[in-house]
Amino acid sequence: MSTPSKPAASPPSGPGFDADFRARLHELFVWRRDVRRFRGDPVAPGLIEELLADATLAPSVGYSQPWRFVLVETAERRAAVLENFRRSNRQALSAYAGERAKLYASLKLAGLVEAPVHLAVFCEENTAVGDGLGRQTMPETLRYSVVMAVYTLWLAARAHGLGVGWISILDAEEARRSLDVPVDWSLVAYLCIGYPEAEHAEPELARAGWEQRQDPAMSILKR
Amino acid sequence: MSTPSKPAASPPSGPGFDADFRARLHELFVWRRDVRRFRGDPVAPGLIEELLADATLAPSVGYSQPWRFVLVETAERRAAVLENFRRSNRQALSAYAGERAKLYASLKLAGLVEAPVHLAVFCEENTAVGDGLGRQTMPETLRYSVVMAVYTLWLAARAHGLGVGWISILDAEEARRSLDVPVDWSLVAYLCIGYPEAEHAEPELARAGWEQRQDPAMSILKR
Repeated sequence: MSTPSKPAASPPSGPGFDADFRARLHELFVWRRDVRRFRGDPVAPGLIEELLADATLAPSVGYSQPWRFVLVETAERRAAVLENFRRSNRQALSAYAGERAKLYASLKLAGLVEAPVHLAVFCEENTAVGDGLGRQTMPETLRYSVVMAVYTLWLAARAHGLGVGWISILDAEEARRSLDVPVDWSLVAYLCIGYPEAEHAEPELARAGWEQRQDPAMSILKR
Repeated sequence: MSTPSKPAASPPSGPGFDADFRARLHELFVWRRDVRRFRGDPVAPGLIEELLADATLAPSVGYSQPWRFVLVETAERRAAVLENFRRSNRQALSAYAGERAKLYASLKLAGLVEAPVHLAVFCEENTAVGDGLGRQTMPETLRYSVVMAVYTLWLAARAHGLGVGWISILDAEEARRSLDVPVDWSLVAYLCIGYPEAEHAEPELARAGWEQRQDPAMSILKR
């Protein structure tokens, strides 16, 4: 009797993703929005923690995992952030003139009052985790890792029907002090999270006439 | 005959995502890897363009869409980037000593030689698109927008069975010059793309014993 030859060991393989999943993932990218108009109803208990656990699956330089999440819950701290936003936004408005200033003033750029969940996301700049690997020449990749955690949470939230709005019109250092976190934590994002009033495939800034979608082909070069 | 009362107009709603999709999305987050070990076979024609189109669905501050993608195709430019990486990596190694240096030297930190596709991703710092909205106080959000485009492409690639590796051990300004792009484009990421030799749920740096996964609960505070 001949002995059948042993098959070569296959390399480890993960779950396959099919065309149906890819089509839905594309829809998720299309329908994710930066939401500023929230319904007031609360987010189901435990869901934010589930989203935060997903966020920590993001890539990080040297496996540094430098994301630090701060759930902002007290009325005092939320009021401080709202005042920070309002002042920063008044200054931002003063950079525009004429029709553009009018349009800017008409935009709703944050949902800080309505959103049931406020989440500040920081980068721990001096973390020992990862032992500095991969970030000697481009140290900014530490903050980029936190950005990817934010975006992971954003996509997972949208898959649950939740909207996320990223507020960047803030004095970051003042926000850090308002939230009483260590000085070596830098603010990457301040997020409002809640159920959106409505869902759109087009960004609010496009619908409002502020800016239009650029042709993707124009952003690709070959070298 | 009584006239039936007209129902109130419903707000626009997008596609719903179900529990099955959410479970697969979670798997995608788990099985996405930073890949450094590629098979040599080419990527199907048109697929990179499809991934790049998805990337441009990423969020961007003020709808600035500042991502610029450079497909690096010539042997000369690839060799320049490889030399840039090797020099930067030798310098990085010199920061470690003893067993840690030995472990660092044993790590495979890039797949620049094997990967069929090289993609450099830049941020156009002075773009007029978006008219500066949302980035007066935190101008770094322009680069963060590019990071989210990179991560969108990364997730879409993985859903197609493709691996992406992000090389951050580079002199960014030298890479910009090697690729002959405008001075106001800053390098955000240099990506290797191709089919992975094997698939893993655990990062290579964890499997190699460089760093371990941190407890997600430790990164959450309430304020």
